[in-house]
Parts: sequence; C-alpha cells; structure tokens
Amino acid sequence: MKKLIVLALGGNALQKNGEVTAEEQKAVASKVGDTIAKLAKKYDIIITHGNGPQIGNIMLHEEKGQSTQAPAMPLETAVAMSQGQIGYWLTQAIDNAFIKQGINKKTATIVTQIVVDKNDPAFDDPTKPIGQFYNEKTAKRLARLKGWTVKEDAGRGWRRVVPSPLPQDIIETNQIINLVKSGIIVIAAGGGGIPVYRTKTLKRLKGIDAVIDKDFASEKLAELTNADIFISLTAVPNAYINFGQPNQTALGLLSPKTAEEYIKQGYFAAGSMLPKMQGATNFAKSGKNRIGIITNFAKLEKALEGKTGTIIKNL
Amino acid sequence: MKKLIVLALGGNALQKNGEVTAEEQKAVASKVGDTIAKLAKKYDIIITHGNGPQIGNIMLHEEKGQSTQAPAMPLETAVAMSQGQIGYWLTQAIDNAFIKQGINKKTATIVTQIVVDKNDPAFDDPTKPIGQFYNEKTAKRLARLKGWTVKEDAGRGWRRVVPSPLPQDIIETNQIINLVKSGIIVIAAGGGGIPVYRTKTLKRLKGIDAVIDKDFASEKLAELTNADIFISLTAVPNAYINFGQPNQTALGLLSPKTAEEYIKQGYFAAGSMLPKMQGATNFAKSGKNRIGIITNFAKLEKALEGKTGTIIKNL
Repeated sequence: MKKLIVLALGGNALQKNGEVTAEEQKAVASKVGDTIAKLAKKYDIIITHGNGPQIGNIMLHEEKGQSTQAPAMPLETAVAMSQGQIGYWLTQAIDNAFIKQGINKKTATIVTQIVVDKNDPAFDDPTKPIGQFYNEKTAKRLARLKGWTVKEDAGRGWRRVVPSPLPQDIIETNQIINLVKSGIIVIAAGGGGIPVYRTKTLKRLKGIDAVIDKDFASEKLAELTNADIFISLTAVPNAYINFGQPNQTALGLLSPKTAEEYIKQGYFAAGSMLPKMQGATNFAKSGKNRIGIITNFAKLEKALEGKTGTIIKNL
Repeated sequence: MKKLIVLALGGNALQKNGEVTAEEQKAVASKVGDTIAKLAKKYDIIITHGNGPQIGNIMLHEEKGQSTQAPAMPLETAVAMSQGQIGYWLTQAIDNAFIKQGINKKTATIVTQIVVDKNDPAFDDPTKPIGQFYNEKTAKRLARLKGWTVKEDAGRGWRRVVPSPLPQDIIETNQIINLVKSGIIVIAAGGGGIPVYRTKTLKRLKGIDAVIDKDFASEKLAELTNADIFISLTAVPNAYINFGQPNQTALGLLSPKTAEEYIKQGYFAAGSMLPKMQGATNFAKSGKNRIGIITNFAKLEKALEGKTGTIIKNL
C-alpha cells in the first residue's frame, strides 16, 4: 500500500509573482501539476490549497458588481466558488501532467464543508480582513447594514474582518477516503473549507461567514484520513528560528516536543509560519508514525526523502 | 442492486420565484434536498443542474467589478465557480435532509470537465447570450478587445454570445461511478460541465469559453455511468404537443421512435423543451432497458412509479 500524503499548497501558490489572470494562474498550476503527477507514482495524495488572493478578488467583484437583481454572494458561498475555481485549475493541471507523463491516473475536486464550533472564541473577535478597502464612513455604514465587523487596516483604509475559528470536523471525509482508496488524486478542503456549524437542537449544517486557517484545516483532514505525511508548502525551504536575524537557523529534523518548545518561545509569525509549525507539530503528535513537513515547492521531493526541509516526527 | 437515476434539475430550479440571494436559493435547495433524500432510500442518484441565472450573475459581477489588479475570470472558470456555489447549496441541502430523515448517507459534489470538439459547428455560430447588456458601441469595442461575438438581444441591448457545442466525453466519469458504487449521492456536471477540448497534437485538456446544454451534458453522463433512468426536470409535469393551443396534448408513455417523430414535426421549443425531449429520447435509444423521463419536481415520485410524466422507453 502506498503512503498517503496530504499536501497543503500555500495561499499564494498560484499567484506568487502577480499572476492574477486565469491564464497566468493556470500556467503556475501547470508546474504544480507536473510535480504532483511524478509524486503520484509513489504516493497516494490529497491536495489542499489556500484561496487568499482568489477569494479576495471574488468578494471584491461580488461587492462592486452587486445589485438588487444580482445580490452579492456571502463569504461562505464565495469560498465554495473559490473551491470550484482553484480546484478546476489544479484538476486540469494534474490531468494534463498525467497525459504528458503517460500515467494512467485520475483526479477529483470535492467541494468540502468543514464544521466549526459556533462557540469558538474566534467569533467574539474577528481578525481576518477580507474584500475591498472602504473609507471609514462607508465601512461603518456597511457594518450597521450587514452586521459586519470592520477594522482599520494598517493605514490602508477600512476593511471587513471575519472570524477564523478552528476546524472541528470535515463533512466529506469518507467521500475523500473513498476516492483515495481507488488511487484517485483528490483536491479537497480548498481555502480552509466552507465554514459550517451544526444548529443547536436540530444538528443541521449551516454556512457561516468565517475563514478557517488552511493549515489547520489541512492538518485536520490529514488526521481524519489517516494520512502518513502532512506537508505544508510555503515560500521558504525550512522553518527558521531567529528568522531574518544574523543568527537565523534553519530547522531540520525535530521532535514534536522541541517544535512545541520553539513555538512557545514565539519564534514564528502569526498567520504565516506559526500555523504551519502548529499544524505539522500537531500532526506528528497525533500518531506514532506520522510525519509533519514544512518546505517549499522546489525542495518537496528532497524533503520527502528526508534530505531537506523542516521535518517533525517522533524520534 | 439499486437502480441508478441521473436527475437533471432545471436551470431555474433554485431561482424560480426571483429567489436571487444565497439564503433564498438555499431555501429552495432545501425542498429539493428533502425529496432527493427520500428517493435515495430506493435509488442510487447522480444530480446534475443548470446554472443559467447563477452564471449570469457571476459574469455580471466579474465584468462590473474587474480591475487590472483583479481581472474578470473567463466564462469557463466561472462555470467552475458556479459548480462550487450550486454544488455546495445542494450538497448541504441533501446532507440536512438525510439528518432530518435519519438516513445514514453521504453526498459529494465533483467539479466536472466535459470535453467538446473544437470543430463542433457551434463554434462558428455562437448563439447563447451570457452576462450583462451593453450599448452597441461598448459591445462592439469589447468584441474587438476581447475577441467576443456580440449580438443584439430582442431589443433589450447588446450582449456577448457564446457557442453551445455538444458534449463528447466527461473527464470525471470514473470518479463519479466510484462514489455512486459506495452509495454516495453525487452532484456533478453542473451548468452543463466546464467546457474543455483536447489540444490537437498533445491531447492536453484546455478550457474554452462556451456553454454546454445542461440536458445534453446530463444525458451524456447518464449514458457513460450506465444509468437506468434519466430524468429531466422542468416547470411542467409533461412534454406537450400543440403546447398552449386548444388541442394541447400531454405526452405520456412514448417509444423513442414516436418521440423522434414529434421532434421532427417541430412540436418543441429550442433551448426549452426540445433539448429535454432529445435528451430523454437519446437516452432511451442508447440501451434496451433505459428510460427517459420529463416531468416537474412535484410529480417526480409519481413519474418514477410510471403514473405520470412523459416517459420514453422501448415498448
């Protein structure tokens, strides 16, 4: 049996050099597809991805283009739209890489709902900026009108901020496992998943405007699908302590305990390397033979051979 | 073994009374979900759906809200976005109906690419209007700028028109069959599928701006998944000859041969009942025990019992 990798692509993985058009993003996806197709000979693979720049543009277009006849879609539905969009680009890129490399394999993109707890403290303190910038007056009017929370964003204007709750469960887990067991490369949990909660008495699923951290969502999926390796891809080949300082040190092989020590000492930036370190560490802690890896796309294959990257495992 | 139904929901199935907001469309989806959950006790089910009003709004927002930093997505990518959007609403509606009815079943929405032939004559004569209305001057400027074909639309202004080629193959067929065989209700081929073609020499998949007729795409999926029953849901309980005339006659049980005779005599409106009659007829013709049904949502269960609706089968 092949080992199962959950591979989380960074939010900017398709837009790293200002590739903003669909064609430009597809061209980046094409390179991602080539590497994934190669890996698919040796591993079962679930791909997850961020949607930062894409959901930003979708919300921007929805807000700017809305009218009474064609109202803007809410954030939770826009996440679903971004899963279709990015999932399609990745699916097609991997399909084409399989054709190119003569590999008889298939892919599937699954629209994925991820359950959050409505009592998650994140709902009391929305922090994640989303959509376009407004002046203060408009922002405050929209806040009253739509029930948004708005905040001033680093001198650049006012923006809506939304909660970033923790993932609790993934509705499509068994469906994803099902496809993986047939050798299909699955793209799932895009953009951290569509955030839903269970209603109190009837336990129905209901979408909620929030953004689930992509690394936490991907780690949860890796646990639930009983993956062997969870890889969080980022812009740099390793996680570092004293990042950007003269004494900057790349982290290689680490135990979860050492990784937690570094996390506690505040070495990693919130919303950037911190969730990746937490995700990889939590995954390694969740099972004796589970391995969490942080690296960049160029080093991915070497990191899987244990030769580079930050590798967190029980030593 | 349960019989497999491919159930095509009409393009307006989620927006029939001007339900334009996400919440309104979810409320309509909720009723659809209740019926599908009930049917899922007796049948395996693949659900397909149109995206007419939704893709119209997505393209409207993309066009109105675009900028150099956040360019509009092309139509083929917008179809993928609408698959995520509508697929999410339907998936959640059916999930909730299963919870409500105490049924232990799962659903999955699969992003679906459908292959068209780049030599399809439809590409020489784009006919399907899409997106917003423009004045003549702007429309013609956009046509030059973006390579669009634009046409005057029934005195209401100028619009972009796109080709509507026939579906030739469905990339995700095996992935869909795989899920169905595990008892999962699958939502696929949304909006007629994302139109792609195979490049001439390298046989790579490439998206193309077009709209595949939802009934033809759904019928193709029914054939490829070896379904038993293909149902095209519409606003009326039957197909009719002499529709809207004093001698209007509802069609009940028909052989494919009789159905083809009526089609040839021009009884059915293009872009409306005609593709449904063609789809249901072609499906019945494609296998000895295959049944094509045209009815509305209210009569769906009775039509499956053979008691109402237009039923096309080999007699």
